[in-house]
Amino acid sequence: MPEFLRLQAPFEARERWLAQVTHRVGVETLPTVDALGRVLAEPIIAREPIPAFPRSTVDGYAVRAADTHGASESLPAYLQVVGEVPMGRAPEFTLAPGQAAVIHTGGMVPPGADAVVMLEHTQRSREDEVEVLRAVAVGENVIQVGEDVQQGQEVLPAGIRLRPAEIGGLMALGQTRVKVARRPRVGILSTGDEVVPPDQPLQPGQVRDVNSYTISALVQTHGGEPVRYGIVPDDFDALMQATQRAFEETDMVVITAGSSASTRDMTAQVLNSLGEPGVLAHGLRIKPGKPTILAVAQGKPLVGLPGNPVSALVNAWHFVVPALEKLQGVTVTRPRPQVRARLAGNLPSEAGREEWYPVRVRQGEDGSLEAEPIHYRSNLIFRLAWADGLVPVPEDATGLPAGTEVVVFLW
Amino acid sequence: MPEFLRLQAPFEARERWLAQVTHRVGVETLPTVDALGRVLAEPIIAREPIPAFPRSTVDGYAVRAADTHGASESLPAYLQVVGEVPMGRAPEFTLAPGQAAVIHTGGMVPPGADAVVMLEHTQRSREDEVEVLRAVAVGENVIQVGEDVQQGQEVLPAGIRLRPAEIGGLMALGQTRVKVARRPRVGILSTGDEVVPPDQPLQPGQVRDVNSYTISALVQTHGGEPVRYGIVPDDFDALMQATQRAFEETDMVVITAGSSASTRDMTAQVLNSLGEPGVLAHGLRIKPGKPTILAVAQGKPLVGLPGNPVSALVNAWHFVVPALEKLQGVTVTRPRPQVRARLAGNLPSEAGREEWYPVRVRQGEDGSLEAEPIHYRSNLIFRLAWADGLVPVPEDATGLPAGTEVVVFLW
Repeated sequence: MPEFLRLQAPFEARERWLAQVTHRVGVETLPTVDALGRVLAEPIIAREPIPAFPRSTVDGYAVRAADTHGASESLPAYLQVVGEVPMGRAPEFTLAPGQAAVIHTGGMVPPGADAVVMLEHTQRSREDEVEVLRAVAVGENVIQVGEDVQQGQEVLPAGIRLRPAEIGGLMALGQTRVKVARRPRVGILSTGDEVVPPDQPLQPGQVRDVNSYTISALVQTHGGEPVRYGIVPDDFDALMQATQRAFEETDMVVITAGSSASTRDMTAQVLNSLGEPGVLAHGLRIKPGKPTILAVAQGKPLVGLPGNPVSALVNAWHFVVPALEKLQGVTVTRPRPQVRARLAGNLPSEAGREEWYPVRVRQGEDGSLEAEPIHYRSNLIFRLAWADGLVPVPEDATGLPAGTEVVVFLW
Repeated sequence: MPEFLRLQAPFEARERWLAQVTHRVGVETLPTVDALGRVLAEPIIAREPIPAFPRSTVDGYAVRAADTHGASESLPAYLQVVGEVPMGRAPEFTLAPGQAAVIHTGGMVPPGADAVVMLEHTQRSREDEVEVLRAVAVGENVIQVGEDVQQGQEVLPAGIRLRPAEIGGLMALGQTRVKVARRPRVGILSTGDEVVPPDQPLQPGQVRDVNSYTISALVQTHGGEPVRYGIVPDDFDALMQATQRAFEETDMVVITAGSSASTRDMTAQVLNSLGEPGVLAHGLRIKPGKPTILAVAQGKPLVGLPGNPVSALVNAWHFVVPALEKLQGVTVTRPRPQVRARLAGNLPSEAGREEWYPVRVRQGEDGSLEAEPIHYRSNLIFRLAWADGLVPVPEDATGLPAGTEVVVFLW
């Protein structure tokens, strides 16, 4: 049987896997100022309208629109100025017919007034009189009560991640505390007898642990809390014990397997033994990432990543990030950041697997964006550090020629 | 004089302004695990090569390539198996001609060997003998010492922001502490007699402070540390005193002015009085954002933003974010996250100013992305909370018709 029939299509496997992820992190109540990047656990309903009073959108004069009917430069309407609307307070007067009041942008339109004339369309002839040089319609330059947000309106749904604008919206409503999903705790294990902590001197044959740290960082950038369980030797019992502990203590477990086939199989065995349904995919039609393992136990997502650092990080981005969203109950997904660029070199690829290629994006001589492929053979982490993003080459393509317009998914 | 001649082109004004920002935040040394999102203060030079020993890229047999010359399925080369390379240690043997050793992916190629034959291209006939079914060239399936990174190579320049891949690269080199730019402290002031803290009940005529919080959140998402100086009344002396204090205590000051023309002028006066060169731009050909003020004093950037929340946040994104980068010494700029989409409705715009329009991005019926314009008149913050990003309409265009392909800059 050809290999591509045994391997699963990566993103269909991901959908099947995520569908089984039923575990959810708990909910906590936070001050809104501390909730940036968190996911709302319940919808926000406006307890009051915005604005709560009729507001002027310009500097000028509050008037009764009817009093300005037919007014023009040559035939102004003369209105009696009865006062000035104070900022931040309700005016203490009511406009009667033939009257006007000075008002500033954001000021409360006084009772009796139904429009505001812009300062530019007036002339102050006398202390107590203003000439209106242009007619205004009822409601002109006024925001009505509830025009932006009505009382009882759902302004933000549950499952939305809070960006600066949402934080501001909550503040506008006086919602200074919010219920949000707890940060998902992600247990991270590295395996491999050759892997040592980065702060230790290297002996011949040893390499430093990179994956624990790149995956921790990725988890942090996507709202999770990494919990590192260190480096586990290539030993079934040791891996089983460490993984079980991580599984009990966290919401999701990510193991970066050693690089040899036998340690990858050991990882799959361990992940499969944690509970039902166990391993759902082992081997995907994707490069890098073919040996990726997707599993679920007790509704919690479990991921086995290839040991080489490029493959581990790229596939953490493909699989760990969406699982983090699911654990937090994200319902509003934003488009993934990307740019379009023209390939500055050929991208080789084999048919039968989707390939994700690191590229650097730069401004070409004509000012348009170019994507320069970063060729790698040994999957070193610096190849990714030098990249701005990844270009997918579809499964049915045998590479893309230089000059092709491609979408670069930014890191 | 037509207004657009008095107003400055926004991004040219920004360049002139940033050129005068000579202040830099200090440098601090951090554990690399805590440096995610920080900006490197000095280049990273590899103190050792990566890999530090010749590594196998496959599971198989380490051999002398010459011994496999002419080997094929029908005429295998028979080699004596002298041992197995342990993971994480140097092998204790040297290969002599006619010998081979079991090796795993990532294992150290033993002295005497110069290539690795993949397991798939071998057959183990006897305990001490392997049949090699395919010839290998010298160096095949081996990464040489320094092939990825050479000793003394600059692997990361100063001024790069550390993403997960860079954190991993630093760990691969054993660089567990790094010198990075301190987080810039940004002093944030809101002005307006009508503005009250979000946790207070609203009286008629009052609105809650939104801008202090949206700008704080934006500063946080771009590596800065917001310092809120609260709400200052519309009074020159009070604003002067609060601004001076913020100026002394922080690296950058951002004031969101009250909404009326007089309070905006007051902000410009205050910013102009802090030192040379003072206000460089007051009034830009951009919507929203026309009343934006760009100033510099003692090399520190100062920004006056319009009071309405949409305008304040959009222009903080245009002007505060690049100033934060400059303060941190960023030299490597990444492409701004964006997507391309087809406009689902007309975007009205006036010629003579660049307009940035909030849109929501959604999947259209044919699967392609559509950008749905979010129309706003009163600049409420929820209009931005409902948007995925902004579409620029160039200064010389009078709107864009539905169906136009546009670039959406994501928040």
